[in-house]
Amino acid sequence: MPDALLTLTTDFGTGSPYVAAMKGVMLGIHPAVHILDLSHEVPPQDCRWAGYFLANVIPYFPPTALHVVVVDPGVGTARAILYVEVAGHRLLVPDNGCWSELARATSANPVVRRVTESRLWRPTVSATFHGRDIFAPVAAHLSIGLSPAELGSTVSKWVVLTPLPLGAIEFIDRFGNLLTNIPATALPAQPFRVAVGEVEITRRVRSYAEAEPGELVVLVSSNERLEIAVNQGNAAARLGVRVGDVVRLK
Amino acid sequence: MPDALLTLTTDFGTGSPYVAAMKGVMLGIHPAVHILDLSHEVPPQDCRWAGYFLANVIPYFPPTALHVVVVDPGVGTARAILYVEVAGHRLLVPDNGCWSELARATSANPVVRRVTESRLWRPTVSATFHGRDIFAPVAAHLSIGLSPAELGSTVSKWVVLTPLPLGAIEFIDRFGNLLTNIPATALPAQPFRVAVGEVEITRRVRSYAEAEPGELVVLVSSNERLEIAVNQGNAAARLGVRVGDVVRLK
Amino acid sequence: MPDALLTLTTDFGTGSPYVAAMKGVMLGIHPAVHILDLSHEVPPQDCRWAGYFLANVIPYFPPTALHVVVVDPGVGTARAILYVEVAGHRLLVPDNGCWSELARATSANPVVRRVTESRLWRPTVSATFHGRDIFAPVAAHLSIGLSPAELGSTVSKWVVLTPLPLGAIEFIDRFGNLLTNIPATALPAQPFRVAVGEVEITRRVRSYAEAEPGELVVLVSSNERLEIAVNQGNAAARLGVRVGDVVRLK
Repeated sequence: MPDALLTLTTDFGTGSPYVAAMKGVMLGIHPAVHILDLSHEVPPQDCRWAGYFLANVIPYFPPTALHVVVVDPGVGTARAILYVEVAGHRLLVPDNGCWSELARATSANPVVRRVTESRLWRPTVSATFHGRDIFAPVAAHLSIGLSPAELGSTVSKWVVLTPLPLGAIEFIDRFGNLLTNIPATALPAQPFRVAVGEVEITRRVRSYAEAEPGELVVLVSSNERLEIAVNQGNAAARLGVRVGDVVRLK
Repeated sequence: MPDALLTLTTDFGTGSPYVAAMKGVMLGIHPAVHILDLSHEVPPQDCRWAGYFLANVIPYFPPTALHVVVVDPGVGTARAILYVEVAGHRLLVPDNGCWSELARATSANPVVRRVTESRLWRPTVSATFHGRDIFAPVAAHLSIGLSPAELGSTVSKWVVLTPLPLGAIEFIDRFGNLLTNIPATALPAQPFRVAVGEVEITRRVRSYAEAEPGELVVLVSSNERLEIAVNQGNAAARLGVRVGDVVRLK
Repeated sequence: MPDALLTLTTDFGTGSPYVAAMKGVMLGIHPAVHILDLSHEVPPQDCRWAGYFLANVIPYFPPTALHVVVVDPGVGTARAILYVEVAGHRLLVPDNGCWSELARATSANPVVRRVTESRLWRPTVSATFHGRDIFAPVAAHLSIGLSPAELGSTVSKWVVLTPLPLGAIEFIDRFGNLLTNIPATALPAQPFRVAVGEVEITRRVRSYAEAEPGELVVLVSSNERLEIAVNQGNAAARLGVRVGDVVRLK
């Protein structure tokens, strides 16, 4: 497996010792493996944010990657750890619905195994850090060529996170742009207004720079949804909104 | 190209899905490519900050690297995307002057191509995320060995960002140290004073720890400019200054 | 050395030009070397924080890694730079005690060399950035196969950072969990109380999710110490404590 690639998505924070310890365990088992940081900035315990992230990122990766996701408020409880194959992508995730949005986005039939084969884990498993003690060694063994069938049996039930209601802001990026879940295909051809609380936005543009500096506009996002932005400004701060808030199309 | 290396410099924020999506696209085209994060902490849309960063970082890299820079307020407009060869370094940049400072620092004659050959891009190009749809696939193809001549024709005009006035603070690092653009060679041999607003600094040291804890001092920076620092403290917070503010030599 | 791996731990901040310049220098000498970011979020000049980090991270790495640590308030002074072999791990560190806790944790007899052989350094060495001018080139040469004996002579004295008093909070993670230095083996079998300032905590759980949301609890951490946490909350913010504060076992 010369190109074996493990990606990491966690809520540990960039520069956390928890991330570094996971990398150490992976390299201890497979010294030549490539490790790629996707994000360690998932808000603490925010499975829904992780779900948005994975749905918008994983589809671009080749199948050579194994995606390790540790956003895991249930660590140390009876919650399962899953090995998921969906639409040609492979993930190792806690069973908390963090991959539901990816499954919906790809409309694929997933194959899911529960990771139970503890001989692959670290000899001592702490109750608070399965990332280091289970996820990292299991991922490293898979990267060497271990068959997923060795991890545990397939299962047919898992936690599913229901989507936010239509119109919800799903994500706010670093620029303060608001990414909603309204598909671009649902936008009317004739002029329309978008209401965010008391504010109504009527100006529609194709790119940020088409707007005047400071102007609040609507555009089609790079994931083909309705997006609200301020050219050279921060729409989230301007409007005082948060993920989960709902915008209305008029 | 066994050592092919793509570096990434963006204003997307560490842990952003935009960065991760770019990595996915690159690896989808060239699964063995090495991807190295330089910075995703460029302040939003700050081409000048990116310019300082590149001028102080790129010269240390070997020519095997291709540097992908996505700080791109003009995304989706008619602004060009450029492939630049300068002083043995190769960059893929939006045409907004983010590499002007690097060109000045190296005094080299650049060869510049406009990236127009759309068959290398993703089939659908969004108006808000050329990083994923143009920069990433073009960089990956170059990393496999595509000839730059395939990208588009050479051009002789591009956006140039003029330097800040002499004496300006060009960069403030995490320690709060102020990096000015006054060359060390311009510093007088006899004692001198540096004025920052109302504050005058006379103490000159060679290293931070030569100063008393909390003492405001002048020294020669690692890029051979005049630097203002506080040992074990934060000069930027102490003086209340920002990038672009000007200090005076007396 | 096909799997040669250099890890980086600094207080430069993620996305700093200083980190990127170090990577450039390393790759300029050894274009195929793998560089892995451990953390650039060490609080500025905080050797103790770095010490906790290294003690809890390095033991998980294979011996193929060389760990480069640049948390270096004494840069440019007479402080030494050390090449350390301890418990099968290899580090390049400033002589400020940042590896003391790792040495204690592994109870190993270290072999320590002072890095004095300047022909391996960059031709011009600045007084403020030895990370780029000394650490990076020395590490890259070691990654190619240079014998450590070429760096300089072994020494028998170095700076040792004394441990915090028993009961101290050694680390606060991104979730606000308090990691103390009280070993799990020191916890009584019968019920006990933990006092943090005026607050007493009696509830002991095995995992975070065993606690009620918002409940303040005691548990055994993943490094087998006493930990204080709030399920789905932030214990550090709730209790208003900092690293170095002491908790009492009753």
